[in-house]
Amino acid sequence: MYLVVVRTGKNNGYLALIIIKKVEISVITKSRFIMKIQGKSYRSIWLHPNDTKVVQIIDQRWLPHRFIIKDVKTCADGASCIKKMLVRGAPLIGAMAGYSLYLATLEIKDVENSAAYLADCAAYLAKTRPTAVNLHWAIDRQLTAIKKGKNLAEKRQIALATAQAICNEDVAINYNIGQYGLALIEAISHKKQGGVVNILTHCNAGWIATVDWGTATSPIYQAHEKGIAVHVWVDETRPRNQGARLTAWELGEHGVPHTLIVDNAGGHLMQHGMVDICLVGTDRTTRTGDVANKIGTYLKALAAHDNNIPFYVALPSTTIDWTMRDGLQEIPIEQRSDEEVRYIQGLCKGEVEKVLLCPPNTKAANYGFDVTPARLVTGLITERGICAASEAGLIGLFGEQAD
Amino acid sequence: MYLVVVRTGKNNGYLALIIIKKVEISVITKSRFIMKIQGKSYRSIWLHPNDTKVVQIIDQRWLPHRFIIKDVKTCADGASCIKKMLVRGAPLIGAMAGYSLYLATLEIKDVENSAAYLADCAAYLAKTRPTAVNLHWAIDRQLTAIKKGKNLAEKRQIALATAQAICNEDVAINYNIGQYGLALIEAISHKKQGGVVNILTHCNAGWIATVDWGTATSPIYQAHEKGIAVHVWVDETRPRNQGARLTAWELGEHGVPHTLIVDNAGGHLMQHGMVDICLVGTDRTTRTGDVANKIGTYLKALAAHDNNIPFYVALPSTTIDWTMRDGLQEIPIEQRSDEEVRYIQGLCKGEVEKVLLCPPNTKAANYGFDVTPARLVTGLITERGICAASEAGLIGLFGEQAD
Repeated sequence: MYLVVVRTGKNNGYLALIIIKKVEISVITKSRFIMKIQGKSYRSIWLHPNDTKVVQIIDQRWLPHRFIIKDVKTCADGASCIKKMLVRGAPLIGAMAGYSLYLATLEIKDVENSAAYLADCAAYLAKTRPTAVNLHWAIDRQLTAIKKGKNLAEKRQIALATAQAICNEDVAINYNIGQYGLALIEAISHKKQGGVVNILTHCNAGWIATVDWGTATSPIYQAHEKGIAVHVWVDETRPRNQGARLTAWELGEHGVPHTLIVDNAGGHLMQHGMVDICLVGTDRTTRTGDVANKIGTYLKALAAHDNNIPFYVALPSTTIDWTMRDGLQEIPIEQRSDEEVRYIQGLCKGEVEKVLLCPPNTKAANYGFDVTPARLVTGLITERGICAASEAGLIGLFGEQAD
Repeated sequence: MYLVVVRTGKNNGYLALIIIKKVEISVITKSRFIMKIQGKSYRSIWLHPNDTKVVQIIDQRWLPHRFIIKDVKTCADGASCIKKMLVRGAPLIGAMAGYSLYLATLEIKDVENSAAYLADCAAYLAKTRPTAVNLHWAIDRQLTAIKKGKNLAEKRQIALATAQAICNEDVAINYNIGQYGLALIEAISHKKQGGVVNILTHCNAGWIATVDWGTATSPIYQAHEKGIAVHVWVDETRPRNQGARLTAWELGEHGVPHTLIVDNAGGHLMQHGMVDICLVGTDRTTRTGDVANKIGTYLKALAAHDNNIPFYVALPSTTIDWTMRDGLQEIPIEQRSDEEVRYIQGLCKGEVEKVLLCPPNTKAANYGFDVTPARLVTGLITERGICAASEAGLIGLFGEQAD
């Protein structure tokens, strides 16, 4: 157990003393299958209970209107699930890539060609979502692990064990993130003498963006479980509305009080004292603490900074890109189809339908992410504790990454 | 003709010398009926050509999917058009209020009761949209004018003339705003050696938010007419999507190059040099230069400030509330139905439909406006010229409002 003083950057009104307890991963696996849907516990990805050649996921494209579980049987199918966003969220993308390479080992007929086949599969997987660093991390980890198998059976066994380990470690990491973030929420609750802690979040860094618990939501779920009064402002997060569709759904299923808002509203709420803390996730963080996250995160960080509200980013260390120092210059920003801007999906007369939002010939641009400079981030919540959004802060927790 | 140096606040990279020509209102009325829909010129509100007891408007709720002209025959009907947003935009709301009180004079049976009846109508109209200061201004102007009529016929005649004058003056004012704003766009075009000037706008401060020309769009239309290469980034502007539905439609019908973006995207564009200037409208501006505008404007102003991009607000002086000094504390912010957040309207299989965007039982909040503090505003573009967003700046142009 040790103490960390959170450097607060320019948000100088806020100072947090966080007690960091190292929580062992072996302890945490007890906590799996926590998150509930209609009273039943789920993870977001799992091996089929009766068929080890099949992986199952929740097809998130239809949430919250339909709850559909999909069988994934091939590596190409897994890649397609990532590309078409049946699964999304950096940690879950990594888990899906891990399982996809396990499925790839089942497709190998001849051990001589296995390296070439797996390299092809890995290259194909790597192209599905360019911004998510977890994807590359999971692919590299699987390829390195599988290489150690002396024969096809051993390679398959290793691949399955690695995919499962990626999932279990993600759960443990998110639990730890939740424990550290919980201390921030508790401190605010204490300061407000038990009054409701208002938390703003953007996009979905919830349990269905990970394997379980979520990143930004983990502190929220843990505070709620502990009986601390919390209320979440949920940014709808255009264009794909992951906030309205997924975060609102998750929080609702788990019974956490929340209110849906448009992405434009957060600044006004912060100006009027209606937000105590911002908690968001990230798809990639540089070693200097610059944070790539869903488009619009930067705007919320500016508003938090302007109103002296703490702005925290929750992240498993797998999303840190230790090779990058300048997020704005270096992190590639995915441009997605303009159809996601021009159309939106919703429930119409009992059917899930897409509606056109603009004149039929209007051109649209669709940048998937933006980069929030470290100077706007109060702190990073990792599985090893909370640190300043800076190289010194991160190296303080991850000394093994020092130059 | 005289020179004004635009104080640029903290956006210290930008300094503009604007030549202000006083343009007389009588000259400007020539310019009316400029804006085109499918090649035909329109205003956004007009007296029925064959029946002086009927006012006609474009029912903007159905744009861009349907182009519907509605007959307004009573004051209550006019109030309903404002409340239900068949017409919207501060200047057009004022024009609608003016015509509504003209229709009210047609409903008076007995001159003795006229004052009481008109007061009732005015009170009812005033409640339709609390944030728009033009509404109150137009109501007061009409009531004062109508009082001067000695009999019912004269009151009706005065009311019609006043309603028409409010419209004609709005056109003239917007033309002038356009002339002054044009100089800003020309200066950027010159600096970029004729390269495309990228303008970001939020919501719809276009010609259908006014009687003609628009406020924020007037400089854009005038630059386009003059052959200056412009391109507009159109914020879709959730929850009611006035950008996607109206601004994109207006610009498209008039042939101005533009690209639709989600409200989350502007910060990223500004970080990457893809925006040269922000131009927005306002619903109410304090005498100190604080600007209430569509929710989300504040977030764009923060991003412009952070990236040293000029952020200008175009406004007819009728939207200045000279009684207020602190926008954040004093300007009432309208809270609208949560259904506008939970549902969205679009075209689905040829029909205009509403779709549900979140779980059926999700709660939502819907604040209509936010306040951008004067410190984030580079300048105000008024019908009398451009000034700093400050009391000194505004009083410099509107000396008659000095304490």
